[in-house]
Amino acid sequence: MQPSTSVNDYATLDLDRQKRCGFPEVIFSEGKTVPWLLGVVQTLHTAGQDVFATRVNPEQAIALEKSYPRAMQDPIGRTFYLPGNTAKTRTGDVLVVTAGTGDLPVAHEAKTTAQVMGANTEMIVDVGVAGLHRLLVQVPRLRLADVIIVVAGMDGALPSVVGGLVQCPVIAVPTSVGYGASFGGLAALLTMLNSCSAGVAVVNIDAGFSAGTLAAKIVAQKQQK
Amino acid sequence: MQPSTSVNDYATLDLDRQKRCGFPEVIFSEGKTVPWLLGVVQTLHTAGQDVFATRVNPEQAIALEKSYPRAMQDPIGRTFYLPGNTAKTRTGDVLVVTAGTGDLPVAHEAKTTAQVMGANTEMIVDVGVAGLHRLLVQVPRLRLADVIIVVAGMDGALPSVVGGLVQCPVIAVPTSVGYGASFGGLAALLTMLNSCSAGVAVVNIDAGFSAGTLAAKIVAQKQQK
Amino acid sequence: MQPSTSVNDYATLDLDRQKRCGFPEVIFSEGKTVPWLLGVVQTLHTAGQDVFATRVNPEQAIALEKSYPRAMQDPIGRTFYLPGNTAKTRTGDVLVVTAGTGDLPVAHEAKTTAQVMGANTEMIVDVGVAGLHRLLVQVPRLRLADVIIVVAGMDGALPSVVGGLVQCPVIAVPTSVGYGASFGGLAALLTMLNSCSAGVAVVNIDAGFSAGTLAAKIVAQKQQK
Amino acid sequence: MQPSTSVNDYATLDLDRQKRCGFPEVIFSEGKTVPWLLGVVQTLHTAGQDVFATRVNPEQAIALEKSYPRAMQDPIGRTFYLPGNTAKTRTGDVLVVTAGTGDLPVAHEAKTTAQVMGANTEMIVDVGVAGLHRLLVQVPRLRLADVIIVVAGMDGALPSVVGGLVQCPVIAVPTSVGYGASFGGLAALLTMLNSCSAGVAVVNIDAGFSAGTLAAKIVAQKQQK
Amino acid sequence: MQPSTSVNDYATLDLDRQKRCGFPEVIFSEGKTVPWLLGVVQTLHTAGQDVFATRVNPEQAIALEKSYPRAMQDPIGRTFYLPGNTAKTRTGDVLVVTAGTGDLPVAHEAKTTAQVMGANTEMIVDVGVAGLHRLLVQVPRLRLADVIIVVAGMDGALPSVVGGLVQCPVIAVPTSVGYGASFGGLAALLTMLNSCSAGVAVVNIDAGFSAGTLAAKIVAQKQQK
Amino acid sequence: MQPSTSVNDYATLDLDRQKRCGFPEVIFSEGKTVPWLLGVVQTLHTAGQDVFATRVNPEQAIALEKSYPRAMQDPIGRTFYLPGNTAKTRTGDVLVVTAGTGDLPVAHEAKTTAQVMGANTEMIVDVGVAGLHRLLVQVPRLRLADVIIVVAGMDGALPSVVGGLVQCPVIAVPTSVGYGASFGGLAALLTMLNSCSAGVAVVNIDAGFSAGTLAAKIVAQKQQK
Amino acid sequence: MQPSTSVNDYATLDLDRQKRCGFPEVIFSEGKTVPWLLGVVQTLHTAGQDVFATRVNPEQAIALEKSYPRAMQDPIGRTFYLPGNTAKTRTGDVLVVTAGTGDLPVAHEAKTTAQVMGANTEMIVDVGVAGLHRLLVQVPRLRLADVIIVVAGMDGALPSVVGGLVQCPVIAVPTSVGYGASFGGLAALLTMLNSCSAGVAVVNIDAGFSAGTLAAKIVAQKQQK
Amino acid sequence: MQPSTSVNDYATLDLDRQKRCGFPEVIFSEGKTVPWLLGVVQTLHTAGQDVFATRVNPEQAIALEKSYPRAMQDPIGRTFYLPGNTAKTRTGDVLVVTAGTGDLPVAHEAKTTAQVMGANTEMIVDVGVAGLHRLLVQVPRLRLADVIIVVAGMDGALPSVVGGLVQCPVIAVPTSVGYGASFGGLAALLTMLNSCSAGVAVVNIDAGFSAGTLAAKIVAQKQQK
Repeated sequence: MQPSTSVNDYATLDLDRQKRCGFPEVIFSEGKTVPWLLGVVQTLHTAGQDVFATRVNPEQAIALEKSYPRAMQDPIGRTFYLPGNTAKTRTGDVLVVTAGTGDLPVAHEAKTTAQVMGANTEMIVDVGVAGLHRLLVQVPRLRLADVIIVVAGMDGALPSVVGGLVQCPVIAVPTSVGYGASFGGLAALLTMLNSCSAGVAVVNIDAGFSAGTLAAKIVAQKQQK
Repeated sequence: MQPSTSVNDYATLDLDRQKRCGFPEVIFSEGKTVPWLLGVVQTLHTAGQDVFATRVNPEQAIALEKSYPRAMQDPIGRTFYLPGNTAKTRTGDVLVVTAGTGDLPVAHEAKTTAQVMGANTEMIVDVGVAGLHRLLVQVPRLRLADVIIVVAGMDGALPSVVGGLVQCPVIAVPTSVGYGASFGGLAALLTMLNSCSAGVAVVNIDAGFSAGTLAAKIVAQKQQK
Repeated sequence: MQPSTSVNDYATLDLDRQKRCGFPEVIFSEGKTVPWLLGVVQTLHTAGQDVFATRVNPEQAIALEKSYPRAMQDPIGRTFYLPGNTAKTRTGDVLVVTAGTGDLPVAHEAKTTAQVMGANTEMIVDVGVAGLHRLLVQVPRLRLADVIIVVAGMDGALPSVVGGLVQCPVIAVPTSVGYGASFGGLAALLTMLNSCSAGVAVVNIDAGFSAGTLAAKIVAQKQQK
Repeated sequence: MQPSTSVNDYATLDLDRQKRCGFPEVIFSEGKTVPWLLGVVQTLHTAGQDVFATRVNPEQAIALEKSYPRAMQDPIGRTFYLPGNTAKTRTGDVLVVTAGTGDLPVAHEAKTTAQVMGANTEMIVDVGVAGLHRLLVQVPRLRLADVIIVVAGMDGALPSVVGGLVQCPVIAVPTSVGYGASFGGLAALLTMLNSCSAGVAVVNIDAGFSAGTLAAKIVAQKQQK
Repeated sequence: MQPSTSVNDYATLDLDRQKRCGFPEVIFSEGKTVPWLLGVVQTLHTAGQDVFATRVNPEQAIALEKSYPRAMQDPIGRTFYLPGNTAKTRTGDVLVVTAGTGDLPVAHEAKTTAQVMGANTEMIVDVGVAGLHRLLVQVPRLRLADVIIVVAGMDGALPSVVGGLVQCPVIAVPTSVGYGASFGGLAALLTMLNSCSAGVAVVNIDAGFSAGTLAAKIVAQKQQK
Repeated sequence: MQPSTSVNDYATLDLDRQKRCGFPEVIFSEGKTVPWLLGVVQTLHTAGQDVFATRVNPEQAIALEKSYPRAMQDPIGRTFYLPGNTAKTRTGDVLVVTAGTGDLPVAHEAKTTAQVMGANTEMIVDVGVAGLHRLLVQVPRLRLADVIIVVAGMDGALPSVVGGLVQCPVIAVPTSVGYGASFGGLAALLTMLNSCSAGVAVVNIDAGFSAGTLAAKIVAQKQQK
Repeated sequence: MQPSTSVNDYATLDLDRQKRCGFPEVIFSEGKTVPWLLGVVQTLHTAGQDVFATRVNPEQAIALEKSYPRAMQDPIGRTFYLPGNTAKTRTGDVLVVTAGTGDLPVAHEAKTTAQVMGANTEMIVDVGVAGLHRLLVQVPRLRLADVIIVVAGMDGALPSVVGGLVQCPVIAVPTSVGYGASFGGLAALLTMLNSCSAGVAVVNIDAGFSAGTLAAKIVAQKQQK
Repeated sequence: MQPSTSVNDYATLDLDRQKRCGFPEVIFSEGKTVPWLLGVVQTLHTAGQDVFATRVNPEQAIALEKSYPRAMQDPIGRTFYLPGNTAKTRTGDVLVVTAGTGDLPVAHEAKTTAQVMGANTEMIVDVGVAGLHRLLVQVPRLRLADVIIVVAGMDGALPSVVGGLVQCPVIAVPTSVGYGASFGGLAALLTMLNSCSAGVAVVNIDAGFSAGTLAAKIVAQKQQK
C-alpha cells in the first residue's frame, strides 16, 4: 500500500499510520470546510481503513449523516465513526471517571476513542472530591481497571485522589468547565501536572481524544505480552 | 491616644489599628533595613502595644534577639512576638492542616499569627490527598474545629477535599512548594480559587499571616455573640 | 437516607451534603442541557431537599419557570431557589457592598446565596474608592456587620479600604467588570490577593456563590456557640 | 501493618502505599532540612520498606552517604536508593530518549525511578530533531520498547516525532533547558501538550520522577496479565 | 511624487514606501469600515501603485468586488490584489509548507503575499511530523528552495524538523489551529522561538502576510547581486 | 449640595466630584441596562451637572438620543455629552496622534474627553513608525503642544519615538488593534511601559477616556498658575 | 554643538537631548561595566552637561565616588548626580507619597529625579490604605500639590484613593514589594492601570525615574505659560 | 564520513550537519559540565570540523583556554571558536545595530556567529529611538547592508523603525535588558512580533546566535545565485 496520498490540494493522508502506530490517521474536523471533511473521509474509506473523526460540528454532522447514514455518530462527544474492513476484538478494561456532569462531552470523546481503538470501556460519572463518599464506594471497581481516565474541570483535584487509591496508570484530562480564574481549563491543567500522586499522565485541555488514544495504547501493550 | 505616629522619615505607624481592626499593626519585615525594623518595633513597644513581626530574616532575627531577648521568635515560621500591656484570653479552635512537610514554614506562620491574635490553635501535618486514609482518620477532629486552615503546595487539592467533609469555614493557603509548572505556587493558588467545594476562602501564596489573621477574626466574631 | 443517588447516566447527586456541610448540593447550571438540569432539580426536590441553582441562563430559566412556577428566580443574579421541607430561621448580619453598578449581578448572586443558606443580608451599592465619602458615611453601618462581602471589578481596591476600617472578616469578590488590562477580572483578583489589609478572604472571579456560601458558614459558626 | 505513622511533628508517613499503589512513599527532598530528611528515611527503612528519595541536594547527599554508605546515590539524577526487605524481579522494556546533553539529569532521574520501581531500562542520548538521522537509525530499537520516555527542552519537538514512529505509549518530559522564551520549560511543556501525535502522556517540567513512575506502572500492568 | 497623502480625516498614506522598502503600503483591513477601506484603495490606485489588502472580511470583499471586479481576491487567504502600473518579473523559489489542512488560510496569505511582491511560489500541504515519511519524500524538493515558509499550529514542531534538513533560511509561522493549551497559537509560537534548529525566523501568530513579505525580501536580495 | 445621592437600588452618585476632582462623575456605560443608564443620566442632569458617558453601545445610544436629542453623541468614539449649567472656557493645546486608522475609535474617545473637560484639542492620524517621514514633517506642530496623547496598537512603538522629539509630557494609549501575539493590546501596553524615552505616562488598553482626563488635568494645572 | 558623540565602541551619546527634551541623556547603569559607566559619565561631564545616573550598584558607586567625590549620591535611591555648567531654578510642587516603608528606594529615585530635573519636591511616607486616617489628615497638603507621585506595592490601591481626593494629575508607580501573587509588582501594576479614579498616569514597575521625569515635565509646562 | 558519532554516554554528535545545513553542529555550553564540553569540542575538532561554542561561562572559558590556547574567545559575547580544516571566504554585508550599550553582549554573539559562518559583519551601537537623529545619520549605511540585525531591549521599538527605512530583510533580537514589566525580554519580544513594519524576522530573547545564523544563511543564499 502506498504510504500517503494527496487529497486534491488540501490534504496528504498518512495511509501507513495503522501499521506504524496501530490505528489509522484520525480526522480533526475543526477548521475544515464540509467539502474538505467529506474528501478526507471518502479517501480513507475507499482505502479500506477505519474512519474516525473528532470535533464534528453540527453542520458537518448533518453532511456526514447524509453521506454515511450507517456510520456511528455521538452528538455529546461530537465523534463520527465508520468502521473499515478489518474485524476487531476488544481488550483491556479502560474506566472513564468524571468529576461533574459538565465534563461529559470530553468523557464521551475519550470513551468512544478508546473503544474504537480496541479497548473495552466503562464510565462512572459525577464523583468529584466535594462529595468523597461517591468516589470511595467505587474503590473496588477502580482497582479492577487496567487504566483509569479521570476527566475534571474547576480545581482538577480528582486525579490526585484517584491516583492515591490504585496501582494502575491514571490519565488526567483537564476540562474547560469552570469560570473566572479557571482560565479555560488552565487551572485544572496545572493542578494535574503538579499532582502529588506519582505518575499521573496529563493530556491537553478537553483532549478526550488524546486520553482515549493513550489508554488504548496502554491496554494494547498488555495484550501483546 | 494619637491615631498614628511618624518614625523618623521612614514610617507612619497606625496606632489606632487595634481599636479599629482588633489587633495592632503587624510589621512586614521584608525590605526593611535592621535600623528601620528596630525603629518601628521600639515605637510600637513604647506605645504599649503588642509587637508582632513576620518574614524576619536571620540578620534581623539576631538583631531583635539582642535587643529583646525575652520576645518569642519562631525560626521555622520566621516570626517575632513581643506582647504588649493588655492581658489576653484565647478563644475558638483553629486547626491548621498541611499537605506535606515542606509546607511547615507557612503553617507555622499561620498558627503563630492566629494564636498571637487570640485564638486557640492546633496542627495536623502531612496528610495530603495522595494518602487519603491519613486524612480520613482525622475527620472527627476536623469536625470539631471552628475554622480549618489548609496549607498545601503542588496540586493544592487538599482544601477541596477537606471542604467537602466539614461544615466550618475552610481557609486555603497555597504554598510555593513544588517544581516546574507549579510556577511558584500559582498552580496551587488557581486550584484553590476553583475549588469544587463551596465557600473556600483563599489567601495569597505562602501567606500564612493572612490565613492566621482571617481565622482569628472569624473565631473572634463567634466570641462576640 | 442513602448518601448519593444516580440521575440516569449524567449525574451522581450527593444527598448527604446537607448533613456533612450544612447545605445540600447546589446546582451549577452552566454546561448542563435543559433535560439534565430539570433531572437533577427534580431528584433533589423529590428527596425533600432545598434546590438552589446558580448561573441559570435564560433558556433554562424559562424551562424551570414552567415546571416550578412557585420557585424564586432572580434574573439579575441568575439564581433559582425552591425551598425544601425543613423550616429555617435566619441568623447573623451579612453585608454586601459593591464598588460599582456593573458589579450588581455578582452581588445579587452572593446575597441570595447567603440568604438561602440561612443568613440575614443587606446591600450597599456603588461606593467605590474614587468617591471615598460615599463609603465613609457608611462606616457605622459597616461596623455592625458580622461579615462583609465586598464586590469590585476594575482595580479591586475597595476590599483593602473596607478591611482597614472594620474588625469583622471581609470577603473579597473580584468581578470581570472593566476593560483592557483588567483581563477578565484578573487585575482585581490579584489586587485582592495582595491586599495590604490583613486577613481578607478571596474567592474566584465573579464567584458571588462562593462568597455567599463562605459568609453563611461564618455566621452559622457564630450561632453554634 | 499500621497504615501510617507520625515522624515527630513534621511528617505522617504513608506506610500503606506499597500495597495500594505498588511502591512505597517516595521522599521529595526539596524543602526538607537534613534532620527531617534523615528522620523520614530512617522511619521507612525501619519499617522494612524501599527508601527512594529524589531531588537530593549536595548537603543532603553527604549526610545520607554518612548514615547509609551502602545506599545507591546518583549525583547526576540526584537520587538516593536504599532497598527494602523484599526481593524483586525486573520486567518490561522502558527506553529513555533525550533530545540533548543538557537533558541528562532529568533523564537519569526518570531511568533510575523506573528501574527502582521494577522496570528494565535503557537510554539513548542526544538525538534531537535538528539532526533527524540520529533518531531514524534508532527506529528499530524504538519499536522494541514497551514504553518510551522522551526528555526534551527548548522546542520540545522530539516526542511528536517519536510518537509518529511507534505503537507503544510515549511519555513526554519537558525540561527547563533553553533560554529566553523557553520560560523555564513552559515552551516545551506546551509543545508536548499540543503534540500532533495522538496519545502522548505529558508530565510536569523536569519531572523525571513522574515519568519513571508512570512508565513502571504501565509495564507492571503488562506483567499482570 | 509626494511622500505621503491624507485620505480625509482617517488615513495618511505612505506613497514613498515602494521606493524605500520595495513594495507599496499594504492595507490591513481589520478594524476599517467599508468607506475607509474603499477610500484608501482608491487613493493608492489613483496614485498608480499596487493595491494589496489583507484580512478582508466578507462584507469588505463584496464591496471591493463591486468597485473593482477585475481585482484578484482569494477567499481562503482573504486577500485583495489590484496591480498597479509597473510591469513585474518574478524571481526566486519560495516554498510554502503546511503541517495540516487547517493551516491553509494562513499559508494562502503567505503564498499570495510573496507572489504579489515578486517571488515565484509553490506549496506542499499537510506534511506534519506525526507522519514523517510524508515530509521525507519531499526532501529533494525542499533542498531546491531559496526560502521555505513553514506554517504549523498545535505543537509547531515542523519548522525545527525542516530546519535540520536544509541550508536555506526557514521562516516559521505559528497558527492558532489547535485547542485547549494551544492558547490561540501561543504554544506553537513558543516552540518556534525555541527551535533547536539554528536560524529559524519567526513571525507573529497567523501572520502569513509577514512571512510572505520576509520571503520576498530575501529572494529580492538574491536578485540584486 | 449633598455630596452623593442614591439612584434607586443600583447607584450612588458622587455629586461632589466636580469640586474635588475638577469634573463630575463620568458614566461608564458598559454593563449597565438601559434603564440604569437613563436613571443616572437623569439624576446628574437634574443636579445641573455635566453629563458625560463613555462606551455607549448602539442600543444605549438610541435610547439616549430619544430622551436627549440635543446631547452630543460621537458614534466613532462611542461617547454621549450633555452639558450642565456652568459656562466653560477652553485652555491648553492637547494633541492626539494615532499610529493607524484602526486606532481612531480610541483616539476619538480621548479627544472628546479632553475637550469636554476643558481642553483645546487637535488630531493627527495614521503616522506610525513604519513610515517615519509622515511623523517627521509634523515635528514643528508636535513641539507646540502642551500635552501629546499617542494612540497605537500592534508594536506600540510610536510613543517612544514621539517622546524623544519633544519636551512636553506624552501620554501613551495602547489599543487592542493587531492580531496573534498582540494579545488584545498587551504587547503595545508592555512596549509603552518599557519606553526608552523617559517620562511617558501610560494608561489602560483602549482607555481613551483615561488619557483624555489626564491630559485635561495637566493643561488645567497650567492654567492655574 | 554636535548632536551625538561616540564613546569608544560601546556608546553613542545624545548630546542634543537637553535641547530637544529639556534634560540631558540620563545614564541607566544596569548592565554597564565600570569602565563603560565611567566613560559615559566623563564624556557627558566634559561636554558641560548635567550627569545623572540611576540604578548605580555598590561597585559602581565606589568607583564613581573615587573619580567624582563632589558628586551627590543617594544610596537608598541608588542615584548619582554631577551638576553641569548651567545654573538652575526650581519650580512647581511635586509631592511623593508612599504606601509603605518598603517603597522608599523607588520613592527616593522618583524624588531625586524630579528635583534634579528642576522641580521642588516633598515626601509623605507610609500612608497606605489599610490605615486610611493617616492619609486623610494629609488631604489639605495633597490638594496643594501640582503633581502627586504615588508609590505602592502589594495591592497598589493607594493611587485610586488619592486620585479621588484631588484635582491635580496623579502618577502611579507600582513597586515589586510584596510576595506570592504580587508576581514582582505585576499585581500593583494591573491595579493602577485599572484605577477607577479617572486619569491616573502609570509607569513601569519600580520606575521611580520615569515618574520623576514625568512629574518634572508637567511642572515645567506650567512654568512656560 | 559517518553521519553521527557517540561521545561516551552523554552526546551524539551530528557530523553530517555541515553538508546538510551549511555549518557544523554548534555547541550550546549551558548545562554542560566542563568534561562534557571538552569531550564534544575534542570530538568535533578531531573530525576536522569547525568548532564553535556559545554561552561559554567563565569556568568553561578557562578550561577551553588551557586546552586550546589558539582558539578565539570573545568574553563579551561568550563565544569560543576553533577553525577547522577548510579554508573560507567571506561574503555579504551583515550589519548589527544595537539600541543601547546593555545590548552589546547579545550583539557580539550575533556578529561573531555570522562571521564564523561566512559573512562580512559590521556594528553600529547605541542608536535607540529616544534619540532618533543618531539613527537617521546612519540611513545611507543601513541601505547598503544585505541584512540588518537589530538588537534591542526595553520597548524593542528599534526594528520597526529600521524596517521602515530599508529594503533588505531585518532580523530583530529582543534582549532581557530592562526592568519591571520588561519581564526578562518578553515586552521587547512581543513588540517585535507585532512590528508594524512588514516582514521583520524575530528570534528568541537574547538569541544572538540564532540571529547570526539566520543572517549568514540569507547572505549565503545570495552568493549561490
